[in-house]
Amino acid sequence: MGDCPLCVPADPALLLWAGSRCRVVDAADPDHPGFCRVVWHRHVAELTDLLPADRAHLLAVVGTVEAVLRRLLDPDKVNVASLGNQVPHLHWHVIPRHRDDAHFPDAVWAPRRRPGAARSVDVAAIRSLLSMTLPRD
Amino acid sequence: MGDCPLCVPADPALLLWAGSRCRVVDAADPDHPGFCRVVWHRHVAELTDLLPADRAHLLAVVGTVEAVLRRLLDPDKVNVASLGNQVPHLHWHVIPRHRDDAHFPDAVWAPRRRPGAARSVDVAAIRSLLSMTLPRD
Repeated sequence: MGDCPLCVPADPALLLWAGSRCRVVDAADPDHPGFCRVVWHRHVAELTDLLPADRAHLLAVVGTVEAVLRRLLDPDKVNVASLGNQVPHLHWHVIPRHRDDAHFPDAVWAPRRRPGAARSVDVAAIRSLLSMTLPRD
Repeated sequence: MGDCPLCVPADPALLLWAGSRCRVVDAADPDHPGFCRVVWHRHVAELTDLLPADRAHLLAVVGTVEAVLRRLLDPDKVNVASLGNQVPHLHWHVIPRHRDDAHFPDAVWAPRRRPGAARSVDVAAIRSLLSMTLPRD
């Protein structure tokens, strides 16, 4: 854990919301604006390393992020994933997908298919709607 | 939905568990033995199209599948993902990952890195443990 990049606090410029157990961070992916990550504060590897109540809390936050991105960005699809092969500290990717993005209909981890349409995202609006809809704990 | 491949019943040979709301199916991926899919029966696209109670139920099933795969296969990591760009019918991939598999540490949707170590999986044991640990509803 000594050099785990998710065991250090998030860059404040990218932090979208923080609770006592997890945080939401802007992934700042130029191919996929609006791509958010939900990061569990404590260093655990797997979803099933969490107690059921913590697991439910984390997944409720993931669901809220999905709902916020749908409302603000109207994506053609949302992708939700927890991989952690490279950084085994529990985190979830929540990715708004559009038919004209760089990878659609493939996963964002597949080779790019095209440059991808330019799309601007109002990060302040995401932050604001998250703060209104997520619990404080 | 007329030609949605997940709106038809699963191949009985691949069905691992079925409840009233969702099912668990063997993905039969030769690169990733033990790769399971959790498929919501009804045709909806996104996790947040479900009512909160259904969402919690689905994610509890996903968590149980992860727990069963960890117990039986001792993977180096588990990957959990709901993409649906190609088949927008809500389903979750639960993928046991090993350092010597064809794609590690990349996502299984990235190009293969190597042939991948051969590994046999006792599908009957997965089916049996799922039936013991999942609810009947």
